[in-house]
Order: sequence, then structure tokens, then C-alpha cells
Amino acid sequence: MTGITAALRSLSADPGAQVIVIDAEGPAFSAGHDMSEMIDRPARFYDELFAACAELMQTIHDVPQPVVAKVDGIATAAGCQLVASCDLVVASDTSSFATPGVRIGLFCSTPMVPISRAVGRKRAMEMLLTGEPITADTAADWGLVNRVVPRAELDAAVDDLVARITRFSRATIAVGKEAFHRQIDMSEPDAYDYTRTVMAANAADDNAQEGIGAFLDKRNPVWPS
Amino acid sequence: MTGITAALRSLSADPGAQVIVIDAEGPAFSAGHDMSEMIDRPARFYDELFAACAELMQTIHDVPQPVVAKVDGIATAAGCQLVASCDLVVASDTSSFATPGVRIGLFCSTPMVPISRAVGRKRAMEMLLTGEPITADTAADWGLVNRVVPRAELDAAVDDLVARITRFSRATIAVGKEAFHRQIDMSEPDAYDYTRTVMAANAADDNAQEGIGAFLDKRNPVWPS
Amino acid sequence: MTGITAALRSLSADPGAQVIVIDAEGPAFSAGHDMSEMIDRPARFYDELFAACAELMQTIHDVPQPVVAKVDGIATAAGCQLVASCDLVVASDTSSFATPGVRIGLFCSTPMVPISRAVGRKRAMEMLLTGEPITADTAADWGLVNRVVPRAELDAAVDDLVARITRFSRATIAVGKEAFHRQIDMSEPDAYDYTRTVMAANAADDNAQEGIGAFLDKRNPVWPS
Repeated sequence: MTGITAALRSLSADPGAQVIVIDAEGPAFSAGHDMSEMIDRPARFYDELFAACAELMQTIHDVPQPVVAKVDGIATAAGCQLVASCDLVVASDTSSFATPGVRIGLFCSTPMVPISRAVGRKRAMEMLLTGEPITADTAADWGLVNRVVPRAELDAAVDDLVARITRFSRATIAVGKEAFHRQIDMSEPDAYDYTRTVMAANAADDNAQEGIGAFLDKRNPVWPS
Repeated sequence: MTGITAALRSLSADPGAQVIVIDAEGPAFSAGHDMSEMIDRPARFYDELFAACAELMQTIHDVPQPVVAKVDGIATAAGCQLVASCDLVVASDTSSFATPGVRIGLFCSTPMVPISRAVGRKRAMEMLLTGEPITADTAADWGLVNRVVPRAELDAAVDDLVARITRFSRATIAVGKEAFHRQIDMSEPDAYDYTRTVMAANAADDNAQEGIGAFLDKRNPVWPS
Repeated sequence: MTGITAALRSLSADPGAQVIVIDAEGPAFSAGHDMSEMIDRPARFYDELFAACAELMQTIHDVPQPVVAKVDGIATAAGCQLVASCDLVVASDTSSFATPGVRIGLFCSTPMVPISRAVGRKRAMEMLLTGEPITADTAADWGLVNRVVPRAELDAAVDDLVARITRFSRATIAVGKEAFHRQIDMSEPDAYDYTRTVMAANAADDNAQEGIGAFLDKRNPVWPS
């Protein structure tokens, strides 16, 4: 977790990184924490473990680039939380998603934070209370996953989605991503007070002026940043 | 925008207006702001523009009548925001919805407010980051649109939906609409503290007493207001 | 309502009760308040009536056991609110759900609290403004109901869902249920600050240590509580 957090922070300042894709090696996307390191430890160990986990998930929101989860295999517990924390998710059709902590007496209480906000209350409750997996198609139907494709097409589907984003201004995407995560937790009136100042500043900036000018001139924009 | 806001305010006090339908002339529902007026303007212009836009959207919530969007064609950027801000939406099956601001370097940061609250986080993110349109059927599946019908049946579908509302007490609808928009931004305990006082007052009022009496007498109610 | 609230409170301390199922006798699940007791009453009556109703709904969240609604027939007004307040819902395919208060001049302002949080804004608005029922399949599609089965299979479907929960530690479920309802109303950063301390304490407790140990030993856990 600290490795992924550090990598995200390093990429956040890299002007060549326009989109970040979280991929996995091996047969699972992620099965979450390693059980063998979680037995008979002092209380401080667990405090630090879940603090590091929450920090990773919030760093995904904090980096200026969109973060895409590329899922092939199981994504369970903190692995499902990782998926739910990403801005966008593409999954192979044989992938599955679960919050099985209840099976080992350790309720998925931090995974529930982004998962309940993605799939809604009753569906999150069913996943959490039964520990049963859902398929990739169900995850897409419930709003946890954006696109489901056959395994052989996963690379191409991620590349396609990324290419639809990298054609745009990196700075504009950063403005929008930050605004999205800040406004989503506000009341609607507060969200408007905040986003209208964001959008007014964006409209006056170099990228919007170039983009609007290019649109009016019927030419392709050349993004300043 | 100021014209629609003024029209809404004028209708809000009109006892003959029970439901407000926002319709459009021409091939689009609304493509949002006019690009030609957004280039090379002073910062104050943009501040006022997005303040006027946010005011329109919030006025839709503030008027006592339900506001229905009747969509035939594209609804993009602030046009998609307008759709998402309405209480109910009926769309022709050839309509489409998008937040394409990112294409011109101007992220749809105010449109994201009602759209993310209607379709959820990952779907809103995909619309915002790619700028790609979704179909009317997808919009209905995602909860942005209530009903999708063939274009030839759009007038009838809107009339049918409106008729299902205008048979009820205008005052009761006004009580409920205000309570809805106020409670949705509260925590559940606060929402109960608020709505139980609203509902107790409503139960004691003339319309509920007439409605309950008519129900018990098996006759049609005659609404006092 | 006071009877159900009292029953829930009594069961909350019963170590033999791992899951609570709310079932109904007769052809309806619940049609809500009894109209005949709601006419020509003093204001204090309505205050107490809706306070008792809100207390019931919040008690469902407060008890440590998951509460499952077993729905066969209509669930309308406060009956639909009761469904929406349960943690999980299983319904027969001939059941239906509605908020028809507007028909009697009494807007379903307290039912809207859990219903709007389950099905989203536009769908809740359509139910509330038109008073029209939705089918069990639509309720499942909108996230109000977890499972829909033919009427003849309803008992078995509820038993199956309950059995998937009762195999787990009662204490772990209680930790998770409380955390769920507390975090869902928080901003995401606050929800993480709260749930990471819940999860760290859970990880160090007897049930998690037994569950993790059993997992590593490839044996079935024996829950301490």
C-alpha cells in the first residue's frame, strides 16, 4: 500500500503522466490484505495498517490524473475498495468483486466507504453481510464498473478509454477531477457556490480560451498545458 | 438563462400553473452556453455567467411546481445540467446527453453537480472525462431520465405524466417538493427531524383532511388549494 | 408502530436473534397508516404519530442485527418506508411499492427519506409526485429490493439469505452494521477517519483473530461471540 501511494505521488508531478492505470500481475486483481501478517499483532499495527490503507485510497482522489482500475480476476476486500476508489474501472467479464471480511470476523468497514457510495445502500449491505461475490456484469449494472469486456479485449478497452482522455488538456482534467471529488460530499447549494467559482476561473484560463477559439475557428486545439 | 429564471419566478406565483414543462425549439434541447460570447471576456463576465447559470438551476428546485424537462435532441453541457436539475425528465429515444466541456478545455464543473447526484460517481466521471454522449436509453438506465419514448409519442408521454400530477392538490405538491429538496442534502437523522414536522403539519391541513375524508367516504376529493 | 419498535428493542439484546425478519399477515405487506384514525385529530396527535413512525424506522438501523423485509403484496406509504428502512429486502414477484400520499393530500414526506436514498432523486420524485406503484422487478432494478422470487419460493429465498448471514459472528455483524449506518451520512474523508478506527479495533478483537487463524489453518472458525 505504501508502495502504491508513493508511486501515485511520484506520478502526480510527472507532466508525461496524463492518466494512471492500476493493473495487477498474477491471477487476481487484488485479494486485499495478507492474512498471514494480520494475526497476533499489537493494536498499533492495525491502526497503522488501516491508516495506510485509507491514505492510499484518498491519494487516488488527490492525484491530478484520472486513475483507472484494469481488473482481471478477483477484487476482494481492500482490493474491491481499491477498485471502488478509482475514477474509472474496466474489467474482464470473468472478474468478480466481493467484501468477504465478515467470513473471517473482520467486517469490511473501510471498503464499505467507497463501495456503498458506488453501488447504493441495499446492494452494499448484501455484499457486506453475505460476503458473496458479484460478477463483472452485475458490478457494471450497479455502477461499480464502467466497462466489461472479454478478457482478450481488456488491453484494447483500457487503451481506448485512456486515449479518449489523453487527447484533452492535462490541466483542465486536473481542475475537473479535483472539483468532482470536493463537490460530491457537499450539499447542492454549497457545491454550486464552489463549482461556479472553479468554472469561472477555468473559463478565463489559457486552455479554455484556446479550446473555445479552436471550436469557433473549426480547428484542432493546441493545449497550453 | 436570466429569461428562464424570470419565467420560472413569474410562474411560481401563478395559481393556474400546476406543473412547469421546459421544452425547446429547434433540433437541440440545449447545447449549453454560446461559445461565441465566451472568448476574450473579462473575469467578471465569467463570474456573472456561471452565477446566473447556478441561479437558474437552483430556481428550478425553488419553485413550488414540479418542473419537467421535455427533451428531443441533444442536451449537452449546461443543457445536460438543465435536464439533471429538473424534477422529472421525459425524452425522445433519439435524444442524447453529454458533458463535453473537456473537449474545449472547460470542464463541466457546474453541470457535474446535479449530474453526479443523478447518475452516480463512476458514470458521471466517464461522461465528464471522455466528453462522450450517452443515449436516452442509457440515461434512463442510469436514473437521469424518467421515461423514453419514440419521438412521435413525446407530446403524449409528457401530457400523460403531467396529467398524473395535476389531478392532485397544488398546495400538497408544493409542500412535498420543498421538503424533498431540503431533506435530500441532510443526514438521515436530520432528514427525519425535519420531515416529520412537515408531514405532521401537512396531515392537519385542509387538503389532507379533505383527502382522508374523501378516501374514507369513497368519493373523489375536492382540493381546497 | 410502537409494537414493532418495542419488539425490535427486545430482540436487540437477545443473543439468540442473529437476523430479524419483518413479515406480514394478510394480503398486504403494509399499506401504511390507518386512514380512519387520521381524521379530525388535534395537531399533537399528528406530531406524535410521525415521531413514532420516524422512531420505528431509525430503530431498524439501531438494532445490532440485520433487518430483512419479507414482502408479499403491496408496500405503500409508511409500508414502503418500512421496506426502504430495512437493511435487506426480499420480495415476491407480485409485490408492488408506492408512495401514494399525494392522492389523499398528504405527501409522503417521511417515506421519502429512505426511499430517495435507495432509488435516487428522479425515480423517487416520480413515485412521490404521481403516486403510481412500481413492480417488484422495477424495485430491484432501482436498488430498493435485493431479491425478487416467485411467491412460492419466498420463504426459501428469505431462509437462504438469512442462512448466509447467521453463519458469521454476531458481534462482527453488529460492528459492521453500526459502522455502515454511521459512515453513510459522512463526507468520505470523515467516513475514513471513523471506519479505519472501527476496523483496526475489529482486527484486534477475538472474532477476527479466530477468523484469521482459522483461515490460515484451513479450518472452520468457532466464533467467540
